[in-house]
Amino acid sequence: MNEATLRALLEQVRSGELAVDGAVDRLRDLPFRDLGEAVLDNHRELRRGQPEVIYCAGKTIAQVQAIIAALLEGESDILATRVPPDMAEAIRADYPQTRHNPLARTLVIQRCERILTETTIAIVTAGTSDQSVAEEAAETALLFGNRVARINDVGVAGLHRLLARLDAIRSARVIIVVAGMEGALASVVAGLSARPVIAVPTSVGYGANFSGLSALLGMLTSCAGGVGVVNIDNGFGAACLASMINQL
Amino acid sequence: MNEATLRALLEQVRSGELAVDGAVDRLRDLPFRDLGEAVLDNHRELRRGQPEVIYCAGKTIAQVQAIIAALLEGESDILATRVPPDMAEAIRADYPQTRHNPLARTLVIQRCERILTETTIAIVTAGTSDQSVAEEAAETALLFGNRVARINDVGVAGLHRLLARLDAIRSARVIIVVAGMEGALASVVAGLSARPVIAVPTSVGYGANFSGLSALLGMLTSCAGGVGVVNIDNGFGAACLASMINQL
Amino acid sequence: MNEATLRALLEQVRSGELAVDGAVDRLRDLPFRDLGEAVLDNHRELRRGQPEVIYCAGKTIAQVQAIIAALLEGESDILATRVPPDMAEAIRADYPQTRHNPLARTLVIQRCERILTETTIAIVTAGTSDQSVAEEAAETALLFGNRVARINDVGVAGLHRLLARLDAIRSARVIIVVAGMEGALASVVAGLSARPVIAVPTSVGYGANFSGLSALLGMLTSCAGGVGVVNIDNGFGAACLASMINQL
Amino acid sequence: MNEATLRALLEQVRSGELAVDGAVDRLRDLPFRDLGEAVLDNHRELRRGQPEVIYCAGKTIAQVQAIIAALLEGESDILATRVPPDMAEAIRADYPQTRHNPLARTLVIQRCERILTETTIAIVTAGTSDQSVAEEAAETALLFGNRVARINDVGVAGLHRLLARLDAIRSARVIIVVAGMEGALASVVAGLSARPVIAVPTSVGYGANFSGLSALLGMLTSCAGGVGVVNIDNGFGAACLASMINQL
Amino acid sequence: MNEATLRALLEQVRSGELAVDGAVDRLRDLPFRDLGEAVLDNHRELRRGQPEVIYCAGKTIAQVQAIIAALLEGESDILATRVPPDMAEAIRADYPQTRHNPLARTLVIQRCERILTETTIAIVTAGTSDQSVAEEAAETALLFGNRVARINDVGVAGLHRLLARLDAIRSARVIIVVAGMEGALASVVAGLSARPVIAVPTSVGYGANFSGLSALLGMLTSCAGGVGVVNIDNGFGAACLASMINQL
Amino acid sequence: MNEATLRALLEQVRSGELAVDGAVDRLRDLPFRDLGEAVLDNHRELRRGQPEVIYCAGKTIAQVQAIIAALLEGESDILATRVPPDMAEAIRADYPQTRHNPLARTLVIQRCERILTETTIAIVTAGTSDQSVAEEAAETALLFGNRVARINDVGVAGLHRLLARLDAIRSARVIIVVAGMEGALASVVAGLSARPVIAVPTSVGYGANFSGLSALLGMLTSCAGGVGVVNIDNGFGAACLASMINQL
Amino acid sequence: MNEATLRALLEQVRSGELAVDGAVDRLRDLPFRDLGEAVLDNHRELRRGQPEVIYCAGKTIAQVQAIIAALLEGESDILATRVPPDMAEAIRADYPQTRHNPLARTLVIQRCERILTETTIAIVTAGTSDQSVAEEAAETALLFGNRVARINDVGVAGLHRLLARLDAIRSARVIIVVAGMEGALASVVAGLSARPVIAVPTSVGYGANFSGLSALLGMLTSCAGGVGVVNIDNGFGAACLASMINQL
Amino acid sequence: MNEATLRALLEQVRSGELAVDGAVDRLRDLPFRDLGEAVLDNHRELRRGQPEVIYCAGKTIAQVQAIIAALLEGESDILATRVPPDMAEAIRADYPQTRHNPLARTLVIQRCERILTETTIAIVTAGTSDQSVAEEAAETALLFGNRVARINDVGVAGLHRLLARLDAIRSARVIIVVAGMEGALASVVAGLSARPVIAVPTSVGYGANFSGLSALLGMLTSCAGGVGVVNIDNGFGAACLASMINQL
Repeated sequence: MNEATLRALLEQVRSGELAVDGAVDRLRDLPFRDLGEAVLDNHRELRRGQPEVIYCAGKTIAQVQAIIAALLEGESDILATRVPPDMAEAIRADYPQTRHNPLARTLVIQRCERILTETTIAIVTAGTSDQSVAEEAAETALLFGNRVARINDVGVAGLHRLLARLDAIRSARVIIVVAGMEGALASVVAGLSARPVIAVPTSVGYGANFSGLSALLGMLTSCAGGVGVVNIDNGFGAACLASMINQL
Repeated sequence: MNEATLRALLEQVRSGELAVDGAVDRLRDLPFRDLGEAVLDNHRELRRGQPEVIYCAGKTIAQVQAIIAALLEGESDILATRVPPDMAEAIRADYPQTRHNPLARTLVIQRCERILTETTIAIVTAGTSDQSVAEEAAETALLFGNRVARINDVGVAGLHRLLARLDAIRSARVIIVVAGMEGALASVVAGLSARPVIAVPTSVGYGANFSGLSALLGMLTSCAGGVGVVNIDNGFGAACLASMINQL
Repeated sequence: MNEATLRALLEQVRSGELAVDGAVDRLRDLPFRDLGEAVLDNHRELRRGQPEVIYCAGKTIAQVQAIIAALLEGESDILATRVPPDMAEAIRADYPQTRHNPLARTLVIQRCERILTETTIAIVTAGTSDQSVAEEAAETALLFGNRVARINDVGVAGLHRLLARLDAIRSARVIIVVAGMEGALASVVAGLSARPVIAVPTSVGYGANFSGLSALLGMLTSCAGGVGVVNIDNGFGAACLASMINQL
Repeated sequence: MNEATLRALLEQVRSGELAVDGAVDRLRDLPFRDLGEAVLDNHRELRRGQPEVIYCAGKTIAQVQAIIAALLEGESDILATRVPPDMAEAIRADYPQTRHNPLARTLVIQRCERILTETTIAIVTAGTSDQSVAEEAAETALLFGNRVARINDVGVAGLHRLLARLDAIRSARVIIVVAGMEGALASVVAGLSARPVIAVPTSVGYGANFSGLSALLGMLTSCAGGVGVVNIDNGFGAACLASMINQL
Repeated sequence: MNEATLRALLEQVRSGELAVDGAVDRLRDLPFRDLGEAVLDNHRELRRGQPEVIYCAGKTIAQVQAIIAALLEGESDILATRVPPDMAEAIRADYPQTRHNPLARTLVIQRCERILTETTIAIVTAGTSDQSVAEEAAETALLFGNRVARINDVGVAGLHRLLARLDAIRSARVIIVVAGMEGALASVVAGLSARPVIAVPTSVGYGANFSGLSALLGMLTSCAGGVGVVNIDNGFGAACLASMINQL
Repeated sequence: MNEATLRALLEQVRSGELAVDGAVDRLRDLPFRDLGEAVLDNHRELRRGQPEVIYCAGKTIAQVQAIIAALLEGESDILATRVPPDMAEAIRADYPQTRHNPLARTLVIQRCERILTETTIAIVTAGTSDQSVAEEAAETALLFGNRVARINDVGVAGLHRLLARLDAIRSARVIIVVAGMEGALASVVAGLSARPVIAVPTSVGYGANFSGLSALLGMLTSCAGGVGVVNIDNGFGAACLASMINQL
Repeated sequence: MNEATLRALLEQVRSGELAVDGAVDRLRDLPFRDLGEAVLDNHRELRRGQPEVIYCAGKTIAQVQAIIAALLEGESDILATRVPPDMAEAIRADYPQTRHNPLARTLVIQRCERILTETTIAIVTAGTSDQSVAEEAAETALLFGNRVARINDVGVAGLHRLLARLDAIRSARVIIVVAGMEGALASVVAGLSARPVIAVPTSVGYGANFSGLSALLGMLTSCAGGVGVVNIDNGFGAACLASMINQL
Repeated sequence: MNEATLRALLEQVRSGELAVDGAVDRLRDLPFRDLGEAVLDNHRELRRGQPEVIYCAGKTIAQVQAIIAALLEGESDILATRVPPDMAEAIRADYPQTRHNPLARTLVIQRCERILTETTIAIVTAGTSDQSVAEEAAETALLFGNRVARINDVGVAGLHRLLARLDAIRSARVIIVVAGMEGALASVVAGLSARPVIAVPTSVGYGANFSGLSALLGMLTSCAGGVGVVNIDNGFGAACLASMINQL
């Protein structure tokens, strides 16, 4: 309920069109419903055409099918993340227009035309094993309406590869750095650029990597300023934050 | 070395003013020196009037005095962080114009006039014990040229305090959330706002807080999108990142 | 051996009916046998009609079948937790009256009529992924004779959903909060209610969740008073404690 | 704002007494202000005579003095926890009626007459080193209006000491168990009683105790049902929860 | 090389049968070869009839078959631990005299008659889930020649069960306590007995058990004296140590 | 209450000397008091002349003085561990006959003549920094009546030093190995001897030692059989266990 | 671009053959391209005949097939590590000349003749379970052109086995020690030799091994000097470093 | 016992000068004594002029004075590490020729002329706070006879500083990298050089640095080959290993 609706309602009370009892009923749980709408409006951005997101890990195929069926009654685009191969196959059988990115483990049902931002989100990976997470970020950022530049496989062990791509990185408005192992790429990129860096540690590696802990701690203690860290392997979350920043 | 200098140098070679040997000498380590300048220019923002920052933890008073003396030969503002009380006293004896914020443990020697951004960075704390970190963030953000709104003591145990300040929080362009213990404030604020949230876990708490680990993990695994996390107690780092975003 | 039995025995000694030797024999290990009975009576509450509980993780189908067969010689209700699907199927084939809750992974063979408490245990979940643990708590609380109110999917990222259900939460006598990720829901609910909160961290999440550690630490360091924490994913344990409190 | 106030306001709109603009203004932030009041009333229980609590760790003497001076303008009792010796001395110099418990590190300024509950909270410790935490719990529970039974030094290494005090433990309505090292006392007490057990791990011990981690994990994984755990050394928090339960 | 051989060699030198050069050659690396024998003799106890042990985890069936075939050329008994079901089946097909304990995951090929010690090793478990580890300990202790008393399912949540078996426990010369979860049984048993206790934490449990960490830390910080701890789930190691002590 | 006392009491009942009521009173809490005595007798070994132990960490000088004064009313020897220097000085001023071992941080007041065991406990250290823990073990073992052999500074980095002392080690009945850093000495000694090894990890080291964690984990995962581990720096606990074994 | 090329380019400018604009274009990104070449030349050692390495974990068979096909266009040897059995089979079907070491999980396609170093890298393992990692190191070291000496199964629990192989170990130029469990072998070998030791902790073990953590911490805190540690199970990395040292 | 002594002994046996019995006695424990000498000779390198090292942490001034006095009876150089300021002062009062490096916390008493290696050990630090550890490495490397190149403050946040010093780094034979925070410098340097890199994580940093853990894990999981890691802050250990490699 926005101010206009509220004003209209009160006008109806004033004019006698709406009885006080009826107004009380509609206003009784105003706080929460209204708050709810406000939150939805500001935060969830459920304006027509904004994507709905389904996190599929731990859900059955039937559950996801039901959610998609419900969402298709609306008009939003739909993004499903962490989709296992057999679930992807089942959904695509139902809705052939679904776009499946097996590396990103995402499904997209796009129904709105989308005009991308002028500015770019750069998604930079240290190695090929980080690309799954980076692709999840890319699919998310694109569906949220951002121009995306993928810069792959520029880990710090071969610094020249990174330096060669520096222009592309520096011309972005926000930079997502996806790296496993020691996660040093976030520090190096942040040191070479003046743009906000969203760092995504990945669980790529073994042994003392401890499922992404080494990259996570490394990124949090980065000696370079301007780095914000999201959860391990959380490409989706990095893209949400980057999109917010890119669209400021 | 910018393109103009390079062009001039090559003109000198063409005209015979500069021998090939001399040009080779000057170009030999061009990559690094040139890169260095570029980096300095883009990243360090050592343009006239930008602040210089001294991290004082683990440094002696004499060392910091020497660094300040050297920096005062330039024209930048100077920000010192993590300044112990006796060091602050010594520096202020040397330079009475120094501004000391004992809660933030910062010293500022401001020499440039600073015009603040139109938009605001909100700095939100969960409890009074988080204010030291929040003040470090505030001093940094201000010196970096940002308008700052402080919203203190709105931890989730008394949700009404937070909701009462929601307008102030939502009107900011970037939000820094500073919280110890379970760090839940970051999730709640991110859920109520559509702006980027920079979360700073603090080491406030005891026992299972494990020096900030509980807040750190809580913020990293936040169920709300749009949260980037910096190191425990790192108010300075949060302000660096927030300033970058606010000034996009 | 209660006081009456002891008194009778001593009377027999006094009257000469029982020789001193015989009395010594009967009293020799009195401490433990007697204590044993006391404990059984007070603690295990193996009074007629109280449920027996089988924790099935790590047991074979044959083992559980044997335990159930033995328990069915008594008259108690039977609750089996952590039942894998194939085990559930086998038990239900044996005993068609078994109630299977596949989400809770519980089996119930109810043989006593149960009158529920007037007061209610609210079971509140942050997200749909926490429902498996919440259902285990609900099945347990019900079989232990408690009225239960399920309040699902009110995580703090969308605070309005929680606030809309506040009345239902506040009208409970004890509140179980089930949440993964950062576990912030426990703090927020405890801050909004004056009732005891039993917090169950779940292993829902990935990366820095570290199998439930983030929610566990978050709940232990909750900034709100009145929160007691049980083990990760331990819906059964939370319901035991909540039932004890609800039936005080 | 309750329904009556809302109805009156709407009547004023209907009658023309209040302009729509004025009504919009008053309704605009209704949700939060109203919620706020409700929360204060329900949760903080700031009714006359309820204690106010000051957590003194990390606060200066001057800060605590200022808070006390402010609170004394009300009529509540005042409880200060984690009070260092010199702070205690300073406060008692200001307010000689202050009760100082040096072992508990608490200060109490009691101004209301307090009638204690009929039922008892038992506070059970494993060893003498746990008594500081137990005393904090006891002072809190008493000021919150609960009868308290202290049962000290009954650690499981000498089981007979515990068994000798079993009656006192079993006659309580709620049991707080305070134990360091392996924290086994919580399991043993919970196994011997049918009452809710609030377990407080303490940082007593060394080496593999890891500042209370061993007791914390032990209590969380207790093989006995009915145990809720609070943070390490958190005697205050345990008493809050126990008081809520005792006063149900 | 034993003393007799050394003496013979020196006699040959003395008699001139063996030149000094030849003797130097044979004595040059005497230290190690000789040490080797000494160690074998003292430590490995490869005297006729002592068991050989094969740790099967991570080995293929073919590898274990080869090792057994080689060992059968000697005369020792053979103990295989951590034997998966299919490997057990294969070995038993080869050697029908093999004794398979599926709960202990052990195979025994016994070829020597064994006279058991007069004194007993008590193997005490907290719950039925600990029995697999306890059975590994029992099979090991038996094959090493010890009388064994199994005391199962006497966890501290039902203390009367433990107290009822106290005589059996106290009459042992060494006590092995096998417990998961919080591992409190080790402390309680050590507090009730004056015999050495070997504590085996098990990985039984979930969540904050962290694969046996809770029991491990609990046993290491036991408030009762006289407890030595072995690795998580290491029934074999506990029996080795207990056997050494029992046979002193 | 032993059997003789019980028999006498029953005789009094039989003869009418004692009324049934009086006998009920005396027998009512027989279980626990009796258990208590039994435990004291079996476990605590508080027979005349057995040492009493005071753990002084976290106790004030006055508290320890009071405990000693009380214990001196008995006839036991007294052992105080973890005694800070100023406390030691104060106690020795009170009781000049006190023996102070500053390296072990122990005080001993010996009042009984003690005949040592024939067999020996070897206490082996890796480096000089481990000697404080080893001395605590030695003082304890001696006062408990064991012959002790100290073998210092034979860490595995200089294996020859260890091998040179092998006879002394092998001739002991039980071996205590005290080592920090990687704790490898326990494995090597256990590999060279057939006697039970009690391993004490020490917090000697820095960095990845993590306050003794590296030695603790190393000793628990020792590739050599026959090693039981006690808590970090727990020289006293190791000696308790070793003494139990040595006196079997 | 090397100095000769640079000089030639400048000569062309001087002679007028190349316009300043063209020279600016070619020099503009000189830093990075040139740096890149330098790095490739110095670091990657992609000189003819040097091996290319493919880390196969997490790659599909098709991906690895594509990479191999591309690499075969060059002339380098090819080393694939962490090759699962089915991938190995597929590659060998394509290229029958492939050498598969199933224990090492490596594939080698060798096309250059390789002359091995005079000096040797010793690869020492504690137990048979460490051989998989050791074989990966051996295959790597061999393909990198080093003579290799394998010394297997000389763990410290049977010290005589190690001492018997001491000559072989001491005659190497660099020593790789591969050990799981407590990793003590690294300390012992380093104490017995004056050569650099590269220590590889393995995840062999269970329980308190915590996936290699115990060996890792043990090796890092080794009491013997001259030990450098690589990641858990990282046989390849150890061989890279050892090869660099051996070929100095 | 060297070969000459052995030969002489055998000659005595042959000539009858020494009886077989006497020879057996002398040879009986030959293994260990002889091994001892060999070890000393090979490993400890106690040849005239080699330095003796004293680790002073946890030692008293008197203890260190005694050790130095004893060592001065030999002719070796003496290196003391981790020397607190007051200890340094006391030693220098005794021996004015002592060289004290307060940043490195080292003392050196040099008595032999030392000819340095032709080749160089580069010691590279990320920031000024790492210099204390680097200086310890430098003092050690110098006293062990190595030429040292110090390259300070080239952390990856300002990559140009590192690139500008690349020649100096690349011209070394071995590189020690000292870095705290995320430790990324090790990866970057290893990627830019073909020389062995010894990485020293430092405890510089706060929060998620966890006393050096972030740098330690980062260096262990480095994406660049050729990195060996030593313990946190272990400048001495890094120099030992680097010196061994440099002097191959």
